[in-house]
Amino acid sequence: MTPSTLVPIALGERSYDIHIGRGLLGQASAWAGLARPSSVMVVSNPVVAPLHAERLHAALAQAFDLGPARIRQVLLPDGEAHKDWNSLNLVFDALLGNGCDRRTLVVALGGGVVGDMAGFAAACFMRGVPFVQVPTTLLAQVDSSVGGKTAVNHPLGKNMIGAFYQPQRVLADLDTLATLPAREIAAGLAEVIKYGPIADAAFFGWLETHVEALAALEPAPLAQAVKRSCEIKAQVVGADEREGGLRAILNFGHTFGHAIEAGLGYGEWLHGEAVGCGMVMAARLSQRLGQLDAADADRIEALVARARLPVRGPALGADRYLELMRLDKKADAGEIRFVLLQGLGRAVVMPAPDDAVREVLQALS
Amino acid sequence: MTPSTLVPIALGERSYDIHIGRGLLGQASAWAGLARPSSVMVVSNPVVAPLHAERLHAALAQAFDLGPARIRQVLLPDGEAHKDWNSLNLVFDALLGNGCDRRTLVVALGGGVVGDMAGFAAACFMRGVPFVQVPTTLLAQVDSSVGGKTAVNHPLGKNMIGAFYQPQRVLADLDTLATLPAREIAAGLAEVIKYGPIADAAFFGWLETHVEALAALEPAPLAQAVKRSCEIKAQVVGADEREGGLRAILNFGHTFGHAIEAGLGYGEWLHGEAVGCGMVMAARLSQRLGQLDAADADRIEALVARARLPVRGPALGADRYLELMRLDKKADAGEIRFVLLQGLGRAVVMPAPDDAVREVLQALS
Repeated sequence: MTPSTLVPIALGERSYDIHIGRGLLGQASAWAGLARPSSVMVVSNPVVAPLHAERLHAALAQAFDLGPARIRQVLLPDGEAHKDWNSLNLVFDALLGNGCDRRTLVVALGGGVVGDMAGFAAACFMRGVPFVQVPTTLLAQVDSSVGGKTAVNHPLGKNMIGAFYQPQRVLADLDTLATLPAREIAAGLAEVIKYGPIADAAFFGWLETHVEALAALEPAPLAQAVKRSCEIKAQVVGADEREGGLRAILNFGHTFGHAIEAGLGYGEWLHGEAVGCGMVMAARLSQRLGQLDAADADRIEALVARARLPVRGPALGADRYLELMRLDKKADAGEIRFVLLQGLGRAVVMPAPDDAVREVLQALS
Repeated sequence: MTPSTLVPIALGERSYDIHIGRGLLGQASAWAGLARPSSVMVVSNPVVAPLHAERLHAALAQAFDLGPARIRQVLLPDGEAHKDWNSLNLVFDALLGNGCDRRTLVVALGGGVVGDMAGFAAACFMRGVPFVQVPTTLLAQVDSSVGGKTAVNHPLGKNMIGAFYQPQRVLADLDTLATLPAREIAAGLAEVIKYGPIADAAFFGWLETHVEALAALEPAPLAQAVKRSCEIKAQVVGADEREGGLRAILNFGHTFGHAIEAGLGYGEWLHGEAVGCGMVMAARLSQRLGQLDAADADRIEALVARARLPVRGPALGADRYLELMRLDKKADAGEIRFVLLQGLGRAVVMPAPDDAVREVLQALS
């Protein structure tokens, strides 16, 4: 058993730890210190559950001394396209159909979609029940593990309906990443890369050295990348839990990225792919506005490309991009708020002239 | 303009004031001190809106200097039977369809159902937007005004899906009560009466003197009853915002009451009617368990009857009552937690032997 790394997330009475390590999913000890629940509802999907659910259930049964009737599972349809009320309601139906109560523990076993829906269901069921995340994708481990954002999509916008709800623990089992397709690893790397430009130039340099090792899932750099990503996000979120200001820098690449996802229809590009391309767009916009050196924008584009992520967006037309970005929930009374770079490692949130945005979009899509 | 009474609700950074007075709904000054929103979405229903919406919109327009395009309205179908996801989604559709953002103010204009749904929608939309309640029923003024509970029903249970979400202000305009049918006034009085037995024997005595004046909506006693109800609830909620323990005493009468509502189908009896009858059942159960004098149980039954509320439940059969109460979300791993009285003015939460519950139900339904 490899010792796991802890990243503490300090949020007052809502503080919790992220455990990062290999094989955590099958270890009863990973649940030590949590209150014994009356029952457990594991929320997963038909792709992830066959790979991991059996070991997780066994660990839960041992950790909490619960019989099989007290550990239930509900499988949601896979993919961002199903991150909607219908899927969410499957969780409520399962919770109520199995006589779950306020001391039922909801466990999210899967990627960001499962985590968002299980977390939102836990936030709403009886106005809030305990929740633990077991993220099985790189993106979920470095992004959804910290911040407490949960949500479902609405036909008119992504993540429009949701809650801030903190888990009691996150178990990031690095071994689960071995079962992911290369495309999903790359998508996860987009969010890892993000933390460099917005907050940590040294980490960005480290990533330039290790990006291929990360894509190959080499354990030591992988653990380091997940840990550093969670630490940076924790620092930002700790200073701004409910997204008043600073936290917005975590959306670097996301304004453009969400427009790509919405414009193509959710699920066409992976979220991380859209963010990867969005970061290149945001970097070039920063460059065009005189905030970022061309050389640094080049480095960002090069690293995104080496992670095997797209660096050119779909040809939606600049007008459509702008329209979609104005609908984004981060827009403020119709004004798009971009996360731009003032050098590598420093992000600011500001509007940008439509003309400059158009020029970037015309060059990159 | 009559001066309004303020009841401060102390909840740290989520503190707010309840304004109680006549004609508040049409006063721009009632909104003073709140941040200017980017737009306003008034959530109401087809019964309430024709009576009050026009004056409210005019006051909002003046208070926040907003044009008519910035003050929108969405009407939800009336009644507890429609307190579901479909109605909730009408609010989300309206918010997104009108380009609302994080600085949009959601205003609930109506009774408890409108307040619960508007509040839950405000809690979830973009993970939380500002919210003000304008309760137009007595029940909503004395119950939903304090506590931050919002929810929708699920086919398997009432208020199963929801959030704790505090409003920024509550405007309890006593003049709105004049348009209510007598049956709704009586239902509201059930929640007023409740505060006596659980927390304030003197208030119970005051109610014995004034119950007919309250039913006749005499302004001075009405203002006093709303104020004292909100104060008592605020005291209880302030000590236990997220319902860890003490707050459960507010559910006096509700365990039986919810079983009545669920057993008959929501909407058959008004919530307050079910609670009125439920309080008599809970008082008699307290008496049977040796916690409450027969004379005090008699006083409770007499006051409930004088408020023109039912004191006998529907004949669902004791087994069905017990089954429904075990499904209640306040049950703990199948054990029903009753709010019982240890004398007038003092409530405790405890289980009760099934036999005693059956005997009470057989006598009272």
